[in-house]
Amino acid sequence: MDAGEHRWAAGLYSDPKIAELFSDAPLFASFSRFEQALIKGLAKAGLVAAADAEDLARQIGDFAPDGAAIAEAGIRDGVPVPEYVRQLRAHVSGPAKPMLHHGATSQDLMDTATIEALISVNVIFAERLDALLQQLDELSTRCGKNELQAITRMQPAVLFHASERIATWRQPLSALRERLPALREQTGVLQFGGAVGDLQALGDNAATVARSIASELGLSWPGHSWHSDRGPVIAQANWMSELTGTLGKIGQDVALMALRGADDIRISGGGSSSAMPHKQNPVTAERLVTMARFNATLISGMHQAQIHELERSGAAWMLEWMILPQICETTGTSLSAALALIQSIEHMGKSA
Amino acid sequence: MDAGEHRWAAGLYSDPKIAELFSDAPLFASFSRFEQALIKGLAKAGLVAAADAEDLARQIGDFAPDGAAIAEAGIRDGVPVPEYVRQLRAHVSGPAKPMLHHGATSQDLMDTATIEALISVNVIFAERLDALLQQLDELSTRCGKNELQAITRMQPAVLFHASERIATWRQPLSALRERLPALREQTGVLQFGGAVGDLQALGDNAATVARSIASELGLSWPGHSWHSDRGPVIAQANWMSELTGTLGKIGQDVALMALRGADDIRISGGGSSSAMPHKQNPVTAERLVTMARFNATLISGMHQAQIHELERSGAAWMLEWMILPQICETTGTSLSAALALIQSIEHMGKSA
Amino acid sequence: MDAGEHRWAAGLYSDPKIAELFSDAPLFASFSRFEQALIKGLAKAGLVAAADAEDLARQIGDFAPDGAAIAEAGIRDGVPVPEYVRQLRAHVSGPAKPMLHHGATSQDLMDTATIEALISVNVIFAERLDALLQQLDELSTRCGKNELQAITRMQPAVLFHASERIATWRQPLSALRERLPALREQTGVLQFGGAVGDLQALGDNAATVARSIASELGLSWPGHSWHSDRGPVIAQANWMSELTGTLGKIGQDVALMALRGADDIRISGGGSSSAMPHKQNPVTAERLVTMARFNATLISGMHQAQIHELERSGAAWMLEWMILPQICETTGTSLSAALALIQSIEHMGKSA
Amino acid sequence: MDAGEHRWAAGLYSDPKIAELFSDAPLFASFSRFEQALIKGLAKAGLVAAADAEDLARQIGDFAPDGAAIAEAGIRDGVPVPEYVRQLRAHVSGPAKPMLHHGATSQDLMDTATIEALISVNVIFAERLDALLQQLDELSTRCGKNELQAITRMQPAVLFHASERIATWRQPLSALRERLPALREQTGVLQFGGAVGDLQALGDNAATVARSIASELGLSWPGHSWHSDRGPVIAQANWMSELTGTLGKIGQDVALMALRGADDIRISGGGSSSAMPHKQNPVTAERLVTMARFNATLISGMHQAQIHELERSGAAWMLEWMILPQICETTGTSLSAALALIQSIEHMGKSA
Repeated sequence: MDAGEHRWAAGLYSDPKIAELFSDAPLFASFSRFEQALIKGLAKAGLVAAADAEDLARQIGDFAPDGAAIAEAGIRDGVPVPEYVRQLRAHVSGPAKPMLHHGATSQDLMDTATIEALISVNVIFAERLDALLQQLDELSTRCGKNELQAITRMQPAVLFHASERIATWRQPLSALRERLPALREQTGVLQFGGAVGDLQALGDNAATVARSIASELGLSWPGHSWHSDRGPVIAQANWMSELTGTLGKIGQDVALMALRGADDIRISGGGSSSAMPHKQNPVTAERLVTMARFNATLISGMHQAQIHELERSGAAWMLEWMILPQICETTGTSLSAALALIQSIEHMGKSA
Repeated sequence: MDAGEHRWAAGLYSDPKIAELFSDAPLFASFSRFEQALIKGLAKAGLVAAADAEDLARQIGDFAPDGAAIAEAGIRDGVPVPEYVRQLRAHVSGPAKPMLHHGATSQDLMDTATIEALISVNVIFAERLDALLQQLDELSTRCGKNELQAITRMQPAVLFHASERIATWRQPLSALRERLPALREQTGVLQFGGAVGDLQALGDNAATVARSIASELGLSWPGHSWHSDRGPVIAQANWMSELTGTLGKIGQDVALMALRGADDIRISGGGSSSAMPHKQNPVTAERLVTMARFNATLISGMHQAQIHELERSGAAWMLEWMILPQICETTGTSLSAALALIQSIEHMGKSA
Repeated sequence: MDAGEHRWAAGLYSDPKIAELFSDAPLFASFSRFEQALIKGLAKAGLVAAADAEDLARQIGDFAPDGAAIAEAGIRDGVPVPEYVRQLRAHVSGPAKPMLHHGATSQDLMDTATIEALISVNVIFAERLDALLQQLDELSTRCGKNELQAITRMQPAVLFHASERIATWRQPLSALRERLPALREQTGVLQFGGAVGDLQALGDNAATVARSIASELGLSWPGHSWHSDRGPVIAQANWMSELTGTLGKIGQDVALMALRGADDIRISGGGSSSAMPHKQNPVTAERLVTMARFNATLISGMHQAQIHELERSGAAWMLEWMILPQICETTGTSLSAALALIQSIEHMGKSA
Repeated sequence: MDAGEHRWAAGLYSDPKIAELFSDAPLFASFSRFEQALIKGLAKAGLVAAADAEDLARQIGDFAPDGAAIAEAGIRDGVPVPEYVRQLRAHVSGPAKPMLHHGATSQDLMDTATIEALISVNVIFAERLDALLQQLDELSTRCGKNELQAITRMQPAVLFHASERIATWRQPLSALRERLPALREQTGVLQFGGAVGDLQALGDNAATVARSIASELGLSWPGHSWHSDRGPVIAQANWMSELTGTLGKIGQDVALMALRGADDIRISGGGSSSAMPHKQNPVTAERLVTMARFNATLISGMHQAQIHELERSGAAWMLEWMILPQICETTGTSLSAALALIQSIEHMGKSA
């Protein structure tokens, strides 16, 4: 978008750091890493000489793709890989050249690049979650002993302490944080299947090549491709929507406490109003609710996109591409917003 | 986004012409039109002298807002209007100045601007729908008499003519086109309610001012505000998702025909493959399915966003802002893609 | 379900009166009405003698289908019509018998039966909506002048009157009520297309027969079948989810007012708690929110179900059957619950 | 429902065996098990004499609740527990009676009962999955060496073997089966928090009582209640929608193969048509697609229901009750339907 198309509202939910991970530059870099790992894997299987493979890998490392041409062709092809490979092929030379991209298909590069992006995304999430958990601990230290009206089904129940409500916010976040290594396992799998998923072009060398690529890229190799099995991306999407749901619940709580008044909560930096200068709206709390509901909406599309037709579905795959980066960005922003919200809590509960 | 964040896949579904309508420049222009219409309406009600109102309106027309500052404040306030109004107030002078924004609230400007954007969006849709209907007619003229295998529940039924299948594509599109004037009526309503929706600051003058603003902006005045009643935007969203559903059905049909082979359809310009040079994938047809399922996913969020809390819900409102422009863009791109797809049909059915 | 499978929670959202309209008895009665109208239409077109048609229609009227056998075959066939027609054919005799079901297909009977059910559903909705609007008027008469704290974005705004909040509840309901006749027009269309939607078995007589059936059944004939165009059912589903969204907003408001306390609202008959005898939970208000979010979830499935494959999609059609009756029941219960909720309001706002 | 309300279409997706697990009888039995375990736990903590607790537990075991009264009160209370406890209290006597339900709340009984139902559901799923995996192995043994046209993006790619496509169906099912023990861990957690989730009524004895209940019921105790943290049910729902998505993909594939013809697949027992006696529709395959899309729709509602207000949200909780049993039934039926579908495959691929 150029300047004339700036949209202020994007600032409410976009996350530039996450967005960057899904942009063209790291995508093409991922493609190149895959092609390098592939040629080395082919060498390991004895299908190309080791020195020739090293030489080709070096050339791939030097390749600077024409992104605009790839983007344009990507619309026609429904995937940017064919044009990327065409350009790369034109760029390289030497004895290993005929083996470039050998045994691979577009989906291998695309899905593996998505996986690499998700791994980076999760590193950011882990950092933000750690910071958030720490802020919650600090809030609990600061206000935990204050008395608070517990509310069930929108009615005052009994009194308890602020620390107890904070604990209900913290526990699911902590559990989600603890699940990150398992998610890394579920998500961090190499995609490699060749034209129709069975690596038939590689024959008996398939497993050797696959394991080598996986090891080179720091991924696992499940023993087969998963072209039409979207388990890894679904696992990631589910985890993210659970996280934003948890953050949305915190936002909802803060908004309701703000509605109940200063004995429940006081936050700084609320939003102002064009008509009522006295107001301090709990805008960040509202935003957490918004983003939770947005991801809870989008998660449906991710589950719909599981229904791939036969060996590869362009329709389902493109739906993933429309949705997954958005869920990632929304999750990233939700974490940042939650952190800001917790930090903005000046007081919670009634001092004894 | 700067160049480094370009994402090729955005080209699969974004619609720059539609996106532009939801960008800051037309938004702020809408705000200014509203404030001009308001001050004139206040004059009509005798609350400000006509000449003073004209002078203020002229000054508003000259106002060039500091967009970056509004975008920044908009995140804090959860709406860009307070900062816009603050800047505007600093810009104007004269006897009518104290009456600037009088009786209005942020939501009046925001919702009315959304309505104005939707009206422009629908003009684009109408043009594209007309072109698409014409292309379908031409296709029917060209191939309609060819024999085609009708398919029900994924099994060959009886033979019929290509014109009959084309008619099933055309009829719902034609019906949607015919509903556009009624949609313009449902959607084209002024939002005007003041701080809490009841225009209490204007007292007995409320109706006079409201009717005057509506007339000035070419909108209707339903006799009351609709701050927490999202009927107009829901009507628009429903219509759009019906449209993309219809286009998705066409895409699905074309993809299935392409699967069945050349006796059903031949299309030019299909997508290429990195592994199989012989392939011509029906990428545009797939894209129509993708976008239909995307909007069918998002429509849920629009319906969730109906549940406003009390007089105004920031959470529900922001959810609308995240979703509605995306549905509009997807709809716009679907229309363009459908047009391209129909034009790319070289042959349909079996010549007698 | 037998008694052993009773599920108490069904009482929270099921609507026996609406459910009955989607049960087998009225479905088969609808089928019979269709077959009667069809044979009379064939007579009108001169394809069967009038007296023979009358005789066959009388026999159809006497037909008592074996529902269990139809239900069982319906699972295998994915539609109950083939077995219904088989049984009916075995039941009738006489010269018109060979023309029974002539020119029609399963979908004609099924979709027309759905339309007839929806028409009956809307009659119930109209009655309940009228009663609800009246209750809101009475509430406004009773409490409208009381002072209430208006709330925007979860923060106190200015004071206004209870009548103003009640008006924001009433206006969208009134608008939805006023749209019912137009919805009757959009939804009340005969489905008639024959095997592949083009009525080819009837040749030049198609329009005569179709118009005759439509007139006999009190439906309109749009000039063509709509087998793969789900416009009529989508229109109904959209309207219903808008209605429950509006009622959910009322429920949300009442729950928030109950949270704020007796200066906002006092309701009788709230739910009790197993642990806290002092509580009176706004259960009915919560239920309205639940049902709004349920329909807002399901609406997505209805929009997904627009994507029919070619001349008829079993997959998409069955999805409609899973969802549409549920939305109808939820809407019916929401109306009843809203009526009960408004009647349970003992006091709203602060007496002057 | 009585006979008059039978609906044939329910047979397409309902699963009586699963439905039974969510009916009142096992629910009340679960409540009783909880109350028995609680009184024993209180004894373990020394809050009631062991013999008195045993006596009360025995009486609870004899209790036959008045289900109709509970169902009726459940609508008013928004939960059936208060009336269940009232009846149970009237039924029991002896020294431990005052400690009946001590420290517990409605949600403890309800959520734990849901967990127990899910554990039983998963046992059924495991059996059906095992049977399905075995059928896929047999199909692969029978037809695996046949040649099949691989299809990517709706276009013929290269030839491969039937075993390869069957493997893409089997792998994700096998992975889901292997995840069941971990799901049992994630889901099988005791809910126990008392009125507002912090077990304050039990003071220092809380952990002792909680661990004792958990051990008695064969569940784990996470160290705190999870009243407003829906992690366990979300994990279950996600797993189920992944499973039906995978089965839906198989259904979609079979339907597409049926469309392509006998060189791809021949299935027995297809559906018949009222208008075209020659047809054999792949109805069961379509049904798998339908159910996948249904669950992919409902999953959104489960994620929306994460946003509990403060210590307990009736609105979000009831939404879970509307959705979760439906997802379970749909998953159960999908497994049965998939088993039937695979068994109905007479031939797959082209014999060499």
